[in-house]
Amino acid sequence: MLDKTVVRNVLEAARAEGRQALTAPEGKLICDAYGIAVPQEGVAGSAGEAASLASSMGFPVVMKIVSPDILHKTEAGGVIVGVKSAEEARASFDKIIANAQAYKADAEIVGVQVQQMLTGGLEVIIGAVTDDSFGKLVAFGLGGVLVEVLKDITFRLAPVTHDEALSMLDSIQAAEMLKGVRGGEAVNRIALADMIVQVSKLVDDYPEISELDLNPVFATREGAIAADVRIVVDYNQAKPRHRPSQEEILKSMNRIMRPKAVAVIGASAEDGKIGNSVMKNLINGGYKGQIYPIHPKAEEILGYKTYKSVKDVPGDIDTAVFAIPAKLVAGALAECGEKKIPGAVLIPSGFAEAGEPELQDEIVKIGRKYNIRLMGPNIYGFYYTPENLCATFCTAYDVKGSAALSSQSGGIGMAIIGFSRSAKMGVSAIVGLGNKSDIDEDDLLTFFEQDDNTRIIAQHLEDLKDGRAFAEAAKRVSQKKPIVVLKAGRTSAGAKAASSHTGALAGNDKIYEDVFKQVGVIRARSLRQLLEFARGIPVMPTPKGENVVIITGAGGSGVLLSDACVDNGLSLMGMPDDLDAAFRKFIPPFGAAGNPVDITGGEPPLTYKNTVKLGLEDDRIHALILGYWHTIVTPPMVFAKLMVEVKEEMAAKGIEKPMVASLAGDVEVEEAAEYLYQHGIPAYAYSTELPVEVLGAKYKWARGAGLL
Amino acid sequence: MLDKTVVRNVLEAARAEGRQALTAPEGKLICDAYGIAVPQEGVAGSAGEAASLASSMGFPVVMKIVSPDILHKTEAGGVIVGVKSAEEARASFDKIIANAQAYKADAEIVGVQVQQMLTGGLEVIIGAVTDDSFGKLVAFGLGGVLVEVLKDITFRLAPVTHDEALSMLDSIQAAEMLKGVRGGEAVNRIALADMIVQVSKLVDDYPEISELDLNPVFATREGAIAADVRIVVDYNQAKPRHRPSQEEILKSMNRIMRPKAVAVIGASAEDGKIGNSVMKNLINGGYKGQIYPIHPKAEEILGYKTYKSVKDVPGDIDTAVFAIPAKLVAGALAECGEKKIPGAVLIPSGFAEAGEPELQDEIVKIGRKYNIRLMGPNIYGFYYTPENLCATFCTAYDVKGSAALSSQSGGIGMAIIGFSRSAKMGVSAIVGLGNKSDIDEDDLLTFFEQDDNTRIIAQHLEDLKDGRAFAEAAKRVSQKKPIVVLKAGRTSAGAKAASSHTGALAGNDKIYEDVFKQVGVIRARSLRQLLEFARGIPVMPTPKGENVVIITGAGGSGVLLSDACVDNGLSLMGMPDDLDAAFRKFIPPFGAAGNPVDITGGEPPLTYKNTVKLGLEDDRIHALILGYWHTIVTPPMVFAKLMVEVKEEMAAKGIEKPMVASLAGDVEVEEAAEYLYQHGIPAYAYSTELPVEVLGAKYKWARGAGLL
Repeated sequence: MLDKTVVRNVLEAARAEGRQALTAPEGKLICDAYGIAVPQEGVAGSAGEAASLASSMGFPVVMKIVSPDILHKTEAGGVIVGVKSAEEARASFDKIIANAQAYKADAEIVGVQVQQMLTGGLEVIIGAVTDDSFGKLVAFGLGGVLVEVLKDITFRLAPVTHDEALSMLDSIQAAEMLKGVRGGEAVNRIALADMIVQVSKLVDDYPEISELDLNPVFATREGAIAADVRIVVDYNQAKPRHRPSQEEILKSMNRIMRPKAVAVIGASAEDGKIGNSVMKNLINGGYKGQIYPIHPKAEEILGYKTYKSVKDVPGDIDTAVFAIPAKLVAGALAECGEKKIPGAVLIPSGFAEAGEPELQDEIVKIGRKYNIRLMGPNIYGFYYTPENLCATFCTAYDVKGSAALSSQSGGIGMAIIGFSRSAKMGVSAIVGLGNKSDIDEDDLLTFFEQDDNTRIIAQHLEDLKDGRAFAEAAKRVSQKKPIVVLKAGRTSAGAKAASSHTGALAGNDKIYEDVFKQVGVIRARSLRQLLEFARGIPVMPTPKGENVVIITGAGGSGVLLSDACVDNGLSLMGMPDDLDAAFRKFIPPFGAAGNPVDITGGEPPLTYKNTVKLGLEDDRIHALILGYWHTIVTPPMVFAKLMVEVKEEMAAKGIEKPMVASLAGDVEVEEAAEYLYQHGIPAYAYSTELPVEVLGAKYKWARGAGLL
Repeated sequence: MLDKTVVRNVLEAARAEGRQALTAPEGKLICDAYGIAVPQEGVAGSAGEAASLASSMGFPVVMKIVSPDILHKTEAGGVIVGVKSAEEARASFDKIIANAQAYKADAEIVGVQVQQMLTGGLEVIIGAVTDDSFGKLVAFGLGGVLVEVLKDITFRLAPVTHDEALSMLDSIQAAEMLKGVRGGEAVNRIALADMIVQVSKLVDDYPEISELDLNPVFATREGAIAADVRIVVDYNQAKPRHRPSQEEILKSMNRIMRPKAVAVIGASAEDGKIGNSVMKNLINGGYKGQIYPIHPKAEEILGYKTYKSVKDVPGDIDTAVFAIPAKLVAGALAECGEKKIPGAVLIPSGFAEAGEPELQDEIVKIGRKYNIRLMGPNIYGFYYTPENLCATFCTAYDVKGSAALSSQSGGIGMAIIGFSRSAKMGVSAIVGLGNKSDIDEDDLLTFFEQDDNTRIIAQHLEDLKDGRAFAEAAKRVSQKKPIVVLKAGRTSAGAKAASSHTGALAGNDKIYEDVFKQVGVIRARSLRQLLEFARGIPVMPTPKGENVVIITGAGGSGVLLSDACVDNGLSLMGMPDDLDAAFRKFIPPFGAAGNPVDITGGEPPLTYKNTVKLGLEDDRIHALILGYWHTIVTPPMVFAKLMVEVKEEMAAKGIEKPMVASLAGDVEVEEAAEYLYQHGIPAYAYSTELPVEVLGAKYKWARGAGLL
């Protein structure tokens, strides 16, 4: 189908000439090969040739300089639009050549391109960029100056499916424009999506195409034609990071995270030493496997027989925790290699983060040589509660649960531990990733995917060393388990200078934003949100549909909860008449049915019970948001216990729907909120937004996983 | 200067003819009178006239139907642009007339307007609308279809000053466009601002101009010309709500909020009755003034002599708290009037909120007749802690402080009480406003403005009964004290159908958003934010400049805190070399100076002390954000006490700067955060965003009040 020979020839010619950009005619050849529609055109070498070419394709035409040395043609005065006659074509040729020479005296000038001029339709941009972490991305946005100012553009990992391409049309702020506004025609969505798909295939097939712009593309009811193509090439693409296979990852990670034996390299009997804290945490945490302290001189540490080297240990070792200075790590790591230990937990700092990248390169090399997976360096270690394993110098932590968290930074790890303990959030694991010299987020995703103790994965990260590997793992894993990510450093735009429009529009954070959405990752906007999502999402059942109903005792909370629904992408169900009537039976005449269902403030427990039961029983409703108002008639704990009772009564009948609650009242509501949370109803005191955010995150996941 | 006679004549003519819209020539007359530049033009009654008119002003011209019955001219096929010759002008005239007749057979056709055609420049919209609550507003946005889709428009209360008009140019998303992008010229900002000012004066001078569009206005380097004007008139403007003078408000509010004597109408000795709860709260709250129970039969209630009517009470009464059924309120209120009581606190529900607007109208009438200010009805009452006054049926509350809060809804009031108690947030007042039949937010602003016990005002509201009065009070008060508002019902767009572009773009919430900014009100995005702002803003000193520095023990927190700074409009100071060197002296070589100053995780208390002290002492720095990382070397309470020590040491030297802190660590950080907060450093555990939001809010206020 695709004429790949043509493309290969063009790219080889450019490589041979040491060029970084293709000419417009070369761009056209490539577009033709990939079925990307472009206007009729030709290159004129003289004014006369320009006139006859233009006459043959019909006026008006656009004329543009063709020079490998001039990328910004408009700036160079190298573009004249709306050329209407043969005479004008002649004059325009001369003017363009003169302008180009004035702009850059030594520019090599191939000629002047004469092109069929497209008018009408909507101008859009389709492009592609190469991201250091994610690799090839395809982009779509509306054309024109305004969009460049508003940066209204969307990205996807290339290649994309036709459905993914269609989703891009809806992902820009000004999506409505494509549907035709104020008399304008709707564009041909299929044709646009086709073009996006082809561009994404092209850059995926030819890694040396580093940036590509179709700008503008004229989109009409009939189809889409790219009026201009700009292609930047780079024949020195960075090598991707080493990627073990899924089987290899699982084999190592299962041994590291669920070890039968742990060695502590640099174990110490001395209080305050890291090697002492690690030993104590292993012991006091209740780890049941073998513990082997390693120390050059000691015979015994904290009652455990001590060895001079891992090589002296009689049995197998799965995980080696390092608590020795940075400069000693390489030597000890090689010994781990000889002992065939599959994983090293590198607590020490003093590597890349401290201006010692060579020291880090050295240990990575040793790791690869011996096939040892490295966690860190520069980390607090990790916790895996199903094995009572605290392979860390921080405090022991033992509240078991189903959330697996990781952090790139130690401080954030400590915040996770504090929050988890305070909020009674059980965890399956907390993992420090630090410098991510080897093990990174996708390795954890692959491990937690098949870990029955984990139901949600929450990750704090500042960058992705291999965004493509992360995306591939996340796309697969998010179908089974929710993944929440807090991406820090959002506001530092990608610093790399770009020579294309699309490249310049590719703020680093926008790419993370779009790729996360593409692969079903829920993005947390703040540290607290990451933690609340990790806590709240797994306690709720998955909703079976989009219809959310608010039942509230406080009208004021109802309004704020409605606001929060819109903010969090939740759909308030339009209340059917029969259901409206059914709710009205339970509430005072001055209450309001509709949605929110306002049961009014002075109601007894029975009113809450009846309405919530109805909300759970009616199968047109898929999720409930409860607004509680503290009164003497229905005190906080009475409300909380009643709600749990109703929930469990329904669950016994097989009815399970996500429920969240907002509690307005005096301090007693805090106890009630905690009771509700512990019984599967995420509930917050003094907040109308947090419960809805948590429900919204659950919905985001369910949609991404195709469950809705 | 302004030729007001012309405008008056035009408006009277339209009124006489019963028209809702002005014709284009009428619009031009008005623009001329107000110095709003418009193109040359004239109205042609025949094809020949069109040709000669066009020839006289020069080609190209635009031709447009003139008909009071056709508002959407383009839709009607009534506009032809780019008419280039006398011949074309003739043909266009005939076509426009034919199209208009086809569009609306019975349309009255005045003729065809021939207008000088403007080309080049940037198309913008300047308009005005009439809002039910805020009255006249002027609007500015970029022209074109795209902006209508993106709703990128900004509003201000009319009339505006020239500076306010200039601020509008920077308030749209696409503001950069006005500065010229990719070779475009910057527009003449002065000319645009002038035109905005004139439009705002026009609609302020003539209330019957209900909507106005200048669309498009062509803005160039030289000036601004409005190519089209559309004016909608409405001669039946709603009467504004009754507005007492500031003196009247103060006189009543001072007596109501700080009463020497309180009557409880419907006092009861029976537990569980509202009139009993009110009595108990007054007594147990420690109120020192006179308490007069009113009851038709009782001699004495809870030890207080009881009267049959307020008229029987021997002394003056300042505040009458109503705890009787709705239908009895009117009668008792009239008695209050005869007794010359200045304020009634109407706890009862059963009025407008319960479908009884007539009952509410009746009491409003009585209130006006006797000059009694009404709080409510349908409220919990109010607290004023400096007088130990709990005029409410809710629980007594006595943690004194400087935040005055109010809520439109009872449930939100209860959340305020719970949060306040839990967070140890002292309050000066908590006020329920309920149906706001009379007393509303601006009355409270005026009272709290001069109340020395109040340093911040925080209000929850769903609507403003008189947005104009609120805005005027807020503009004045916000110069002295921060005002934070949570506007609920954000997402319900203004339902009123509009017949102009500007009107259609006026989503109700966008108006609230822009007016709040115009008058210096800080908008809270959520209930929790309202509460956190009320708590945090008053404890900090006002910053003296924009330079914020982050000092953190956790690099990871530093990144998240930086993100939060950008999200909250804070400026991270570019670190001067000498200051950078000074910080470096205190931190390890692998730490990072710059901003954030990363002191690294394992540092002793002295490092925190030295760096924070330096941050306070250097007068180029105006605010500090601290990131703490829990370690054994510097435990949480050691950090907290040390920070307070440094802060107080500096304060003794006259150095006071706002400081906030984010604490990452195990649960002990919660106690440390509370200690810091109680000592003037808003601090949060497990959150990098909340402390920065609070600091950001303080900055927003300081900027609005002109202190920065």
